[in-house]
Amino acid sequence: MPTGPKLRAERRDEPFRIVLVDPEIPGNTGAAARTAAATESALHLVGRLGFRIDEQSVRRAGLDYWHLVDLHRHDDLASFRVAHPDARLHLFSSAATKSYLDVEFRPGDALVFGKESTGLDRALLEAHPDAVVGIPTLGAVRSLNLSNAVAIVVYEALRQTGALQRTYVEAPSLGS
Amino acid sequence: MPTGPKLRAERRDEPFRIVLVDPEIPGNTGAAARTAAATESALHLVGRLGFRIDEQSVRRAGLDYWHLVDLHRHDDLASFRVAHPDARLHLFSSAATKSYLDVEFRPGDALVFGKESTGLDRALLEAHPDAVVGIPTLGAVRSLNLSNAVAIVVYEALRQTGALQRTYVEAPSLGS
Repeated sequence: MPTGPKLRAERRDEPFRIVLVDPEIPGNTGAAARTAAATESALHLVGRLGFRIDEQSVRRAGLDYWHLVDLHRHDDLASFRVAHPDARLHLFSSAATKSYLDVEFRPGDALVFGKESTGLDRALLEAHPDAVVGIPTLGAVRSLNLSNAVAIVVYEALRQTGALQRTYVEAPSLGS
Repeated sequence: MPTGPKLRAERRDEPFRIVLVDPEIPGNTGAAARTAAATESALHLVGRLGFRIDEQSVRRAGLDYWHLVDLHRHDDLASFRVAHPDARLHLFSSAATKSYLDVEFRPGDALVFGKESTGLDRALLEAHPDAVVGIPTLGAVRSLNLSNAVAIVVYEALRQTGALQRTYVEAPSLGS
């Protein structure tokens, strides 16, 4: 499909890491994968998945962007930390008392989100109280869709670190 | 379901308006409705919908937050403008050359998003070139999921206007 001109930001050296622990709903992981691929973030899927990610299942679920994602798989969060010992963890939780706007994000940070139904394990949050972060809400609903929360945080982290400042308009492309 | 303490921001006088024109995919409108209800934004559905929004259909689609949304329905964008003559329009498009971070959002602004497949009509964008805004991408994928784009923009608009500054921790509630 031919595409029009597109507002782009320059690629960066060290990407953010989107970490989903025990995600349950394939559409949310699919949308987060699209955000990862659109922002050059890595996507780390940790623990038990509520869906299959073999090629056939992914195609059937309409996850069109899956092959463009820098995807990693870990048995548990401890394995992720062993693989990425320098990555600072931010643990997103609806039980947080610190706002994501009060975090100073740095490239390479791990943005960790729990499962849709119950979030990250309480024991994990209690072991790292200074890392627990939330997105404030104002209205009758007190939490956001998982993929929306990921998108809000990734774009705030990109904004804070200046990754969206050097934008340019990419010429239209023929075919995709 | 009992809920834990929750990071909240104070309610505000004039909400942002999320405007979806001809939305096609119910899950995206559902997630945008949840964002609207979580941020005290109004949700305006404009034009042809790719799904039904009667109570039974909404319940069947699992749109649990629908009844908490300040929902408005318009035949077309002209009707929206007649109903809200003071609302400034920001037209979100993947063909934009101005970044959403270069917009100065004001309470009451209308954040207008087009359909998933093709976005807002070209004629509308050409009639209001100064209002056309986009979200920069860095990676292989050049656009975001609709509900994710809505969430990124609403939270940036709230951040810019100071709506997320006065946060407080709400005590746990019993039952929901």
